[in-house]
Amino acid sequence: MALLSASERETLTRDHPAWEVAGEEAGRQFEFSDFNEAMGFVTRVALAAEKADHHPDIDIRWNKVKLVLSTHSEGGLTNKDADMVEVIDEMI
Amino acid sequence: MALLSASERETLTRDHPAWEVAGEEAGRQFEFSDFNEAMGFVTRVALAAEKADHHPDIDIRWNKVKLVLSTHSEGGLTNKDADMVEVIDEMI
Repeated sequence: MALLSASERETLTRDHPAWEVAGEEAGRQFEFSDFNEAMGFVTRVALAAEKADHHPDIDIRWNKVKLVLSTHSEGGLTNKDADMVEVIDEMI
Repeated sequence: MALLSASERETLTRDHPAWEVAGEEAGRQFEFSDFNEAMGFVTRVALAAEKADHHPDIDIRWNKVKLVLSTHSEGGLTNKDADMVEVIDEMI
């Protein structure tokens, strides 16, 4: 699987401005009203990640969730990451 | 709620050697066979945390989960943390 081209990275950044696309990673922080809502979101992300066999790093701080995507086998961002960004942003 | 005394911290460390008790925090890393097992564990921890109204920081890296406990309102470790360590270690 090829790394995203410069223009593909620009498209990702433009279409998903809440994500920080930098170097080998794309990350976004989400804030919810409480832990219950945060875990509900994490569970939905986990199910989507397992289905796609592509798993973000997930950090939970009570009502805040940080997700970081990267395709480690390719050493950077690929369409697997861009697709997962789409899936996750559709949940919000 | 009082902070744990020095002897209470020693007891916690002795009874739960897999936890790193340092400064204001107690942390432990857990490793599972895959993301499915890791998320199963995280879900059990989340339910116990919500029940106790005491929520660890949770970092998920595919098959690895890191938990960090602290009682932020007291600025350190209290019986809420010691009790949650007990509950979590009983899951393993």
